[in-house]
Amino acid sequence: MTRAELFSQIQRKSSYLCVGLDPDLEKIPAHLLSEPDPIFSFCQAIIEETADFAVAYKPNIAFFEALGARGWETLAKVAEIMPKDVFTIADAKRGDIGNTSKLYAKAFFEAMNFDSVTVAPYMGKDSVTPFLEFENKWVILLALTSNVGSLDFQLIEDKTGKPLYQSVLEKSQEWGSPENLMYVVGATRGELIGEVRKVAPEHFFLVPGVGAQGGSLTDVARFGMNSTCGLLVNSSRGIIYASGEKDFAKAARKEAEKLQVEMKGLLEKYL
Amino acid sequence: MTRAELFSQIQRKSSYLCVGLDPDLEKIPAHLLSEPDPIFSFCQAIIEETADFAVAYKPNIAFFEALGARGWETLAKVAEIMPKDVFTIADAKRGDIGNTSKLYAKAFFEAMNFDSVTVAPYMGKDSVTPFLEFENKWVILLALTSNVGSLDFQLIEDKTGKPLYQSVLEKSQEWGSPENLMYVVGATRGELIGEVRKVAPEHFFLVPGVGAQGGSLTDVARFGMNSTCGLLVNSSRGIIYASGEKDFAKAARKEAEKLQVEMKGLLEKYL
Repeated sequence: MTRAELFSQIQRKSSYLCVGLDPDLEKIPAHLLSEPDPIFSFCQAIIEETADFAVAYKPNIAFFEALGARGWETLAKVAEIMPKDVFTIADAKRGDIGNTSKLYAKAFFEAMNFDSVTVAPYMGKDSVTPFLEFENKWVILLALTSNVGSLDFQLIEDKTGKPLYQSVLEKSQEWGSPENLMYVVGATRGELIGEVRKVAPEHFFLVPGVGAQGGSLTDVARFGMNSTCGLLVNSSRGIIYASGEKDFAKAARKEAEKLQVEMKGLLEKYL
Repeated sequence: MTRAELFSQIQRKSSYLCVGLDPDLEKIPAHLLSEPDPIFSFCQAIIEETADFAVAYKPNIAFFEALGARGWETLAKVAEIMPKDVFTIADAKRGDIGNTSKLYAKAFFEAMNFDSVTVAPYMGKDSVTPFLEFENKWVILLALTSNVGSLDFQLIEDKTGKPLYQSVLEKSQEWGSPENLMYVVGATRGELIGEVRKVAPEHFFLVPGVGAQGGSLTDVARFGMNSTCGLLVNSSRGIIYASGEKDFAKAARKEAEKLQVEMKGLLEKYL
């Protein structure tokens, strides 16, 4: 999916919601456990009910990988049923030397046709660029994450006072463009989103940490929105586990709609 | 495997060789392609012929993942046939927020019984510690990697002149001990291995970059060896693709033995 197509979907749905798929056998409704592939049934129902309100889906690869080969099969099936009009994100946090990153890229872009993969920047350019060589595919690079551990290294300042996440933003813009490179920017650091926006005015940000992790949707829009929205705000648990009963998919729909309505207002205000 | 057990294997085999398993369908000998699971047959033959000389094996997970669910099955089979006396490394470069890292840990430590996983440090403490909670299991944290891209961020100096990789070494020693935490330290930076050794005197280093990437085995031993050896030196392509013909496993054996003989001399000199 191109940036123009993504923005057009955002306008069409008045939403920049990304639904995170973290399907956990211990958390999905019990009645699904008798299905042949409970995780698939769960994801399928969630996708069907939320697709009116979401422009992106983000399967968290660990949740599938933890189930071994079977989980990997499920992931491929989930990737296949994604609606054609949504942006798909393999949340895998991969990154290795060139020939290895290329294989990860093939796994997610060719074998499963994801639009994007989340990538960790620590190993530098040759760990990131192999992902950027695929046409109409995206890298979503970790810049400033939403977890407590983000304070350990991402905010270390260099001699000129520039924090590490900013070096990541600056250097990586030499490798990719706003057409194939997004950044993970956590919502838990509302005011910092504005700082990131200054360094990367055009790029889309994938924003985790709204809801369960405590970030504010309004702050994200106020500090982060640009002229093509430039935001995909992720919610996982708040949507997919809104109910642990048979009504889980309808409950997910309701939560997704709530966020979409809020986003519609914010798009009207800040776009 | 504990650190004492690992050191005892190193002494028994007079070797600190790690064989990297990067099995690529385009590179393995053609006669294997008619086997039911060519990648498995390849890895099995390599392991059988090199086990006298290697103390560790490191499957590169990308090479399996690129084959989808089937590759994941192969990986599980390869994990199962690992000799009991070797240290096994899932080279996966994972790392995510706490609950997600925990799932990656389960995938590699519980479902497949690997001794260790390589982990990327960018997301900080809560992305690393979930792996450290498993008894007798190890994190091998990226510190100073062997690729060109390592220059992009790992050497950025903070206000006090401390490079990022050193902050990673220092901070992570608050999370784990030499009994469950190793570091990836590339051999392509011979003199820097000595710098890393100063900051982490007790820890084992997993050293890639000898051979194909140009690092020197002697420099690694001279600058990096400590009183329990403290080194696992990896060779992948130089061993597993020593021959592309039917004699590939014997050729691998010969290359592994060459390295082991060299390592024996270095152990006698520097241990």
